[in-house]
Amino acid sequence: MFLARASDDAGVNLTDLSTRELILHRDELRREYEALQAQRLALDLTRGKPSAEQLDLSEPLLELPGAGKHLAGDGTDTRNYGGLRGLLEIRQIFGELLQVPTEQLIAFGNSSLELMHECLVHAVLFGVAGSVQPWGMGTGTAFLCPVPGYDRHFALCEKLGMKMITVSMDTAGPDMDEVERLVAADAAIKGIWCVPKYSNPSGIRYSAQTAGRLARMSTAAADFRIFWDNAYAVHHLTEARHSVSDILGLATAAGHADRPFVFGSTSKITLAGSGVAFYGASPANVEWLTGHLGKRTIGPDKINQLRHALFLETAIGVHAHMDRHRALLKPKFDLVQGTLAEGLGDSGVASWTVPEGGYFVTLEVLDGCASRVVELAADAGIALTAAGAPFPYGKDPDDRLIRLAPTYPPLSELAEALTGLVVCIKLAAIECLLDDPGTG
Amino acid sequence: MFLARASDDAGVNLTDLSTRELILHRDELRREYEALQAQRLALDLTRGKPSAEQLDLSEPLLELPGAGKHLAGDGTDTRNYGGLRGLLEIRQIFGELLQVPTEQLIAFGNSSLELMHECLVHAVLFGVAGSVQPWGMGTGTAFLCPVPGYDRHFALCEKLGMKMITVSMDTAGPDMDEVERLVAADAAIKGIWCVPKYSNPSGIRYSAQTAGRLARMSTAAADFRIFWDNAYAVHHLTEARHSVSDILGLATAAGHADRPFVFGSTSKITLAGSGVAFYGASPANVEWLTGHLGKRTIGPDKINQLRHALFLETAIGVHAHMDRHRALLKPKFDLVQGTLAEGLGDSGVASWTVPEGGYFVTLEVLDGCASRVVELAADAGIALTAAGAPFPYGKDPDDRLIRLAPTYPPLSELAEALTGLVVCIKLAAIECLLDDPGTG
Repeated sequence: MFLARASDDAGVNLTDLSTRELILHRDELRREYEALQAQRLALDLTRGKPSAEQLDLSEPLLELPGAGKHLAGDGTDTRNYGGLRGLLEIRQIFGELLQVPTEQLIAFGNSSLELMHECLVHAVLFGVAGSVQPWGMGTGTAFLCPVPGYDRHFALCEKLGMKMITVSMDTAGPDMDEVERLVAADAAIKGIWCVPKYSNPSGIRYSAQTAGRLARMSTAAADFRIFWDNAYAVHHLTEARHSVSDILGLATAAGHADRPFVFGSTSKITLAGSGVAFYGASPANVEWLTGHLGKRTIGPDKINQLRHALFLETAIGVHAHMDRHRALLKPKFDLVQGTLAEGLGDSGVASWTVPEGGYFVTLEVLDGCASRVVELAADAGIALTAAGAPFPYGKDPDDRLIRLAPTYPPLSELAEALTGLVVCIKLAAIECLLDDPGTG
Repeated sequence: MFLARASDDAGVNLTDLSTRELILHRDELRREYEALQAQRLALDLTRGKPSAEQLDLSEPLLELPGAGKHLAGDGTDTRNYGGLRGLLEIRQIFGELLQVPTEQLIAFGNSSLELMHECLVHAVLFGVAGSVQPWGMGTGTAFLCPVPGYDRHFALCEKLGMKMITVSMDTAGPDMDEVERLVAADAAIKGIWCVPKYSNPSGIRYSAQTAGRLARMSTAAADFRIFWDNAYAVHHLTEARHSVSDILGLATAAGHADRPFVFGSTSKITLAGSGVAFYGASPANVEWLTGHLGKRTIGPDKINQLRHALFLETAIGVHAHMDRHRALLKPKFDLVQGTLAEGLGDSGVASWTVPEGGYFVTLEVLDGCASRVVELAADAGIALTAAGAPFPYGKDPDDRLIRLAPTYPPLSELAEALTGLVVCIKLAAIECLLDDPGTG
């Protein structure tokens, strides 16, 4: 599924070498690796966190809304209790960006993951609109997990004991033949995880055809839900502001209005810990979720929503703001591409994605080799996301994918980490090719 | 359980009157009531909400932390992800106020009710430290509900289908003989709701003896929990800053360290919708809750916690701030006392609490009469909390308690509402004494 990028200069393709040549290369790489270890690095490419410079872009939020500015557009005193669905002005901005009618979008809390958890827990305990009974804990409920995917999605299913059924992905989204076959046959399959745009970690975008088939497909479960986590809706890395299909509109048109749960947040737009999260769905689903939320809280932090509305102003304002993020992120992603191409382009032992948005680059190394790369990197002071993280239970059956998160470190640290990573990848590859477990 | 306050001037005791005299009084009160209706009031004493003037006290929060001021004391960039337990500086302030060691207190979200819900849901799904199995949904799990109590506590139990067992309260807390008898006999009883200081709605404070017995008592359930909702820990209405016992310390000393869950929030200290909530418990319980929270979120809004720490500064700062609340609230509570005493002091048909803190006055009217008072008031444009609200399922078996929430309306509106309420109470009482269902 991944696109390797060859460098211009002719490098050595490691897979073409004889055992003797491989041993010579290995010995040289071990010396490079020892030199790397001697640098005593402490670098971190583990998580999709914005950098301090990105957070600086939202500096005005630290003094908004400002003294005396606590009234929302409709006169609501944002300081007091109430307003379970969130402020109209922030829902208007993000309804447009998330393709959800304002009246069907709620703004709640600082974490879309929390809203996903809330949906799952209440489905488990009570069922959703259309359920004949609660989903229940345990393997009586199954979820489709397109892989590679987002580890925190899978962790929610794991926590609730749900069965996770992996489905492979290509550059247009999940294998829809397989998805259609599975959901038609098994009423225990209650949902599917989707990150439709600039997917975590592969960066792919669901095609219109994929979205249409998800919206239309026949499911054995009457209460099937698409968890449409549009986490990177406006997080472009090129000038092309790619769009994905309006899943809510498509499903509604197909007679499955209750099927999609749309999620989003400003965590990677404004401030990662202090943003606003969103949930969009059919009127029946909004009633369902707010009915549950209303028992557990007297309302979200409306001042933070007002603060965000004052700062971002409009959907156009969000796009302009994201252009400033892009200016900071593009050099980092370019550095990843450049360093990997230069170090590994002709090596035959690695390929990687060239994302046009989102927060990650996914590396594909030789089968059985990914966890060794992560181990070598860790021992050289370069922390990578655990190999296997993009798979249910953290287990990559082929042990070949590594998620790189280049956004957080400064450019100079990123360069050091990537240069070191190239050494680790090559060394692990030669060990694999030699069937040598290595000694670290 | 309630303290009536007689007025100085001799009024008419309605319970002493003959039927003929009652009818004369009723006819006069009906004219007063019609005049009240003609005023077309739209007044609201339903919920314990702070007034706009109280919220104004926290005006600086609207522009804190201020540009460039995003680092916590330990260097944490509060803008980014992480920090599941919350910022040290806010936990230090509220650890002192909630009698919880800082390292055992977490600061999370904007709603203590949400944290209570989180504890209950995870106990239902997974059990708590010490559970041999999950609590499970339904009446296999029971909670002790001291009455009158907080309707939103009971609503959580109702939502999860738990059996609610009411226990009466006196001015020292729940009837501990009854509590001890029940929890010793029935392992299905997993918890008790407690608002130990300035209780919602009765205003009482748990005595040291009550707290000690709760901490020490033998429970058939090994995983019994006290939900100690210290919602009004610093919400004094007199100069006496009453304290309650340190339940966590007492339980720990008694060998039941895991028994208390302590909750609190700044909702009625700073901004009702945009405060900070707290959970304090044994190290094992803190591990348990954060283990669950960590699956559903990447951390709380740390900027809001920093904002609060900068504004409140210290526990002493919180007390000084609460003195300013008291200056605004005392005239309202005095008005309640004065109006009720003048209008009902010698009537023999109502008594009421004289709280020294918290947000409520509880009225006790003649048995079977409370819902009629609420109905009459509603029809005269005075919204009261539903009769029965302080009881599980909203059902007061004696139909005699009414919760008054005088904090939100301006003094002039409160005066109008109380004056009208007196008419409604007397009219309903005479209808009851005459066994006349009334015609409204």
